[in-house]
Amino acid sequence: MEKGILIVLSGFSGAGKGTLMKELMKTYDNYALSVSMTTRSPREGEEDGREYFFRDRKVFEEKIAQNGFIEYAEYCGNYYGTPRDYVEAKLEEGKDVILEIEIQGMRKVKAMFPKMLSLFVTPPSARELEKRLRGRGTETEEVIKKRLSRATEEAEGVEDYEYIVINDDLKTCVEEIHGIVKAAKRATLRNEGFIKQIKEELNVLSEGE
Amino acid sequence: MEKGILIVLSGFSGAGKGTLMKELMKTYDNYALSVSMTTRSPREGEEDGREYFFRDRKVFEEKIAQNGFIEYAEYCGNYYGTPRDYVEAKLEEGKDVILEIEIQGMRKVKAMFPKMLSLFVTPPSARELEKRLRGRGTETEEVIKKRLSRATEEAEGVEDYEYIVINDDLKTCVEEIHGIVKAAKRATLRNEGFIKQIKEELNVLSEGE
Repeated sequence: MEKGILIVLSGFSGAGKGTLMKELMKTYDNYALSVSMTTRSPREGEEDGREYFFRDRKVFEEKIAQNGFIEYAEYCGNYYGTPRDYVEAKLEEGKDVILEIEIQGMRKVKAMFPKMLSLFVTPPSARELEKRLRGRGTETEEVIKKRLSRATEEAEGVEDYEYIVINDDLKTCVEEIHGIVKAAKRATLRNEGFIKQIKEELNVLSEGE
Repeated sequence: MEKGILIVLSGFSGAGKGTLMKELMKTYDNYALSVSMTTRSPREGEEDGREYFFRDRKVFEEKIAQNGFIEYAEYCGNYYGTPRDYVEAKLEEGKDVILEIEIQGMRKVKAMFPKMLSLFVTPPSARELEKRLRGRGTETEEVIKKRLSRATEEAEGVEDYEYIVINDDLKTCVEEIHGIVKAAKRATLRNEGFIKQIKEELNVLSEGE
């Protein structure tokens, strides 16, 4: 069984990441979504191990001390983190594990997993993004301004991602993401074992007899 | 019309590059094969502008002086080079231009076109490569040793390529190459214009009114 690859997916709020992930998981069976751990309380309908692993601060901080997170952050008084054991178990099973995190998280993961694949999802244009952020027109202008300024910040780090995918049509975008993942598996940096082996065998063959 | 991308394809002798290129060109219409220029004489059946552009040394050296080659080399007393004008015209037409060159050429092209895509083609194993190099068993052991030692040299630079593709089944390999090229077009480094534009528009939108 070949190990899976680690995929970080980020994108503008309003780019449709959630729907994309759902469609990707439904269409192909090689993916697993990473489940984060958090110290916040479950909301109605949320299930432990599905939306999040819900744990108390003591457990979370012990896990931090054991270097048990690929990345974690504190946000509004609660911890959120990506458990290393869960991700590594899925990779070992051959699953391509998707982390839906933001740019700060992506940078931390990249430091630890330099071979991860990173994707940034965007609507086809800033106008379209604005339209989606405006939603059904029920938000105040202040909320919309806040969202737009957040998107402007998010846009700053786009070049740090390997790929940018445009979510115009859902199915097309899912195919594009899947194609990028398939191509990524042929990258030389993800085939070091195979390359080493063929070199060694060639050395034996060309020196032999 | 979007500009095409420049693709360098190398690989072991015996990896089946020629057949792959033919099949790729037959299956998809977005590719153009670069035609090299040479000072050697045409062989029987070769046509000017198809196998090579056949030119004399004076013309070739003038073109060198005008920086008219993406890369060139002298080999067995003859010049071989990739004409820049031909490649750039095809890229402007929106064609993805494939250069089938060796590693030294690849490095020169990369210095000039840092956004080029590079692929290395290999048989599935060293044993299989040996089998192909042995061919129909009509070659002397000395010739085979020479080919194997050449392959050992060729293997040294594999990590300098972005992708390694295994040519086991022709159609599968063609699909894989095409998938890699499609994915490459979504790389952030090949979408700088789009990223710049969306950033500028977001700045206007979030500051506006």
